[in-house]
Amino acid sequence: MTFAQVKVNQDRLENRILELAKFGLQENGETERVAFSDADVAAQQWVIDILKELDLKVHIDFAGNVIGRREGKKPSLKPISFGSHIDRVPNGGNYDGCVGSMASLEVLEVLNENKIKTDHPLEIIIFSNEEGGVMGSRAIAGHLGKEAFPIVNSTGYSMAEGIMRLGGDTTRIAEVARKKNEIAAFLELHIEQGGTLDKENIDIGIVEGIVGLAWWEVEFTGFANHAGTTPMNARQDALLAAAKFIIAVNEVTTSFEGAHVGTVGRIKAEPGAPNVIPGKVVTSLEIRDLSLEMIEKVYEAVKSRANEIAKTSNVQIEFRPLDTTADPAIMTTAIQDEIAKSATKLGLTTKRLPSGAGHDAQDMALIAPAGMIFVPSKGGISHSPKEFTSAEDMANGANVLLRTILALDKKLN
Amino acid sequence: MTFAQVKVNQDRLENRILELAKFGLQENGETERVAFSDADVAAQQWVIDILKELDLKVHIDFAGNVIGRREGKKPSLKPISFGSHIDRVPNGGNYDGCVGSMASLEVLEVLNENKIKTDHPLEIIIFSNEEGGVMGSRAIAGHLGKEAFPIVNSTGYSMAEGIMRLGGDTTRIAEVARKKNEIAAFLELHIEQGGTLDKENIDIGIVEGIVGLAWWEVEFTGFANHAGTTPMNARQDALLAAAKFIIAVNEVTTSFEGAHVGTVGRIKAEPGAPNVIPGKVVTSLEIRDLSLEMIEKVYEAVKSRANEIAKTSNVQIEFRPLDTTADPAIMTTAIQDEIAKSATKLGLTTKRLPSGAGHDAQDMALIAPAGMIFVPSKGGISHSPKEFTSAEDMANGANVLLRTILALDKKLN
Repeated sequence: MTFAQVKVNQDRLENRILELAKFGLQENGETERVAFSDADVAAQQWVIDILKELDLKVHIDFAGNVIGRREGKKPSLKPISFGSHIDRVPNGGNYDGCVGSMASLEVLEVLNENKIKTDHPLEIIIFSNEEGGVMGSRAIAGHLGKEAFPIVNSTGYSMAEGIMRLGGDTTRIAEVARKKNEIAAFLELHIEQGGTLDKENIDIGIVEGIVGLAWWEVEFTGFANHAGTTPMNARQDALLAAAKFIIAVNEVTTSFEGAHVGTVGRIKAEPGAPNVIPGKVVTSLEIRDLSLEMIEKVYEAVKSRANEIAKTSNVQIEFRPLDTTADPAIMTTAIQDEIAKSATKLGLTTKRLPSGAGHDAQDMALIAPAGMIFVPSKGGISHSPKEFTSAEDMANGANVLLRTILALDKKLN
Repeated sequence: MTFAQVKVNQDRLENRILELAKFGLQENGETERVAFSDADVAAQQWVIDILKELDLKVHIDFAGNVIGRREGKKPSLKPISFGSHIDRVPNGGNYDGCVGSMASLEVLEVLNENKIKTDHPLEIIIFSNEEGGVMGSRAIAGHLGKEAFPIVNSTGYSMAEGIMRLGGDTTRIAEVARKKNEIAAFLELHIEQGGTLDKENIDIGIVEGIVGLAWWEVEFTGFANHAGTTPMNARQDALLAAAKFIIAVNEVTTSFEGAHVGTVGRIKAEPGAPNVIPGKVVTSLEIRDLSLEMIEKVYEAVKSRANEIAKTSNVQIEFRPLDTTADPAIMTTAIQDEIAKSATKLGLTTKRLPSGAGHDAQDMALIAPAGMIFVPSKGGISHSPKEFTSAEDMANGANVLLRTILALDKKLN
């Protein structure tokens, strides 16, 4: 049997996904497993037990990440790392980070079964609290600050308490950080949270990068007045101006070629009574793209449209940047190419695309060459109990992960 | 001295306005006098004292209205009634209903001074709690139901408690109701709450009617999704559809000739996070006009535009009528004509116009021939401490009120 014939066990992978979904299963048939919950702690232990059965050297790091190491033939080489996360958003689904986590276990198991020993050490990382701010990967990338510790998630536990619950140690977080290039390469398999692969019937997405995002608060100041007595042509209607702005954001965003997105998700109108013309409206504005230049370009175009709207509506419009900006993370081109080759050799169709959502790979890219493999999610639904990825699609992704690890093992040194 | 030479005392009228503004005066120089407040009760007593000094037969009716009667030469005739209200909205101004109330006192005083005895009995009514749902006039028109009693205003008192505080009696409200045509005519002077008279530099507004209004709740159902991973062309953005709707309401409303108005004053988007495409939005829709047919016509056009928006946006739009519809109240044409003649004889410019705001005259029109006189409000500002009407404009209005009463006294029987 050659390496090329080695394939993951689709049924075993699917069964592990179904087994994992039992941690946090509720009476309504849906699963809740937010980071730090009892279900999250129990699932963590279940993963550790499997890794131990697979003869890995396993430990929980000080940030609560589960790390399993499989030695290679050449101890001097840096590890090839891969993994994802098993925590979920409230009211989330069974696939999300679970697919990449269970596929990583499957890759290790199939290597064991086939007695394949890599040159590089292999390292599986099940990151802690991805959904609550990519906590575990930020710690490994060396930028999880203490200011994050008081943040409480829906379990009622703070991040600091959660780290302790998962077996970490908040006083030693800094020791978790890896130096740049201590890891030979990092790979993450994840479901695509958009619907592109599903819609275009493509097997494998090759992530070009994880988009950056910028947020603004936009304030519209008109003049609140009696809706019965103020003629239509004498109004300074802040909501009418905001409506024009929302449409402008959509028009500007779609007017440029590219995968960038622009969203107005939050709106508040004051005084907010049916019989009063709104004098003040505050909305959010979010722009995401792989390139900071494109974010800036869309923002400038939106601002210019806003200026026109302000003039014609007799309403002032002010933009306030919010401190939630995340820079784009580009995936290493050479790794993208290896993923593409591996998929093609498996007879799978591929598409290069950006990830609109954040992932652990975003922070891992700060310290290691990184790549991400996407598999389709039915209808593009994610963060929902309706989330679904077929067993075949999961196995395709796991096979690509396996082959890419083996290819990188040969290529890197 | 002939009747035509009798004029109100402008200084006395202005002084009464300034005196009245002291009831509820606060440290910041502004006045608060919401119905049922201590200031409202004290101002009510102050008015009663003045009416008694003017030799009127005064009583507080069971709804808390102050009613003063001046007998006429022909006891068999029905009274000519006039008045307005002295309660104010929170953070309101010194003019609003105060102008008509103080002008009514001034009319009575100048008749006394000139020893003018009318054929008809004259009746001044200072209506209770106009701002909180035209309470006093609804009671007189016979449709203040007990379901209104639990409504609490910003004073913390319920309408039932407020009626008792003002000297009324909730158990005897029904006795307040007048039969149709028990009153020969009703007149109300008020500031114009729009800016038409001020902008067009016109002295007197002759109200053609008080517009009716209809309210709807409009619900937009799209699909909430991840703002980072959902491409622009795969969104069902309920807020984008709502924005198009808000603009459509404005365009449809202004596309028809007329003084009707259409307003979206309230909006709520769910889940309301900057990084989530809104899946659900609920807005208000208000349409006002003098004609129910026009309200219906605008609504149908808005609905048709909404149907187009729903289709092109892939968002469902549902209209739910709210039970706050008020029918238009047409002012009696013959009384409008008398007001016009009175103003013209005084050398004042006039304009016939609808009232976009509700007034006590709206309910009085249900039981009596009714007319309304508007005087300019600077910049059209109302329900604000910045509200202002000049002493000359107030005196003009009071003179028109006086002459119209005298003209109707001769004409009616």
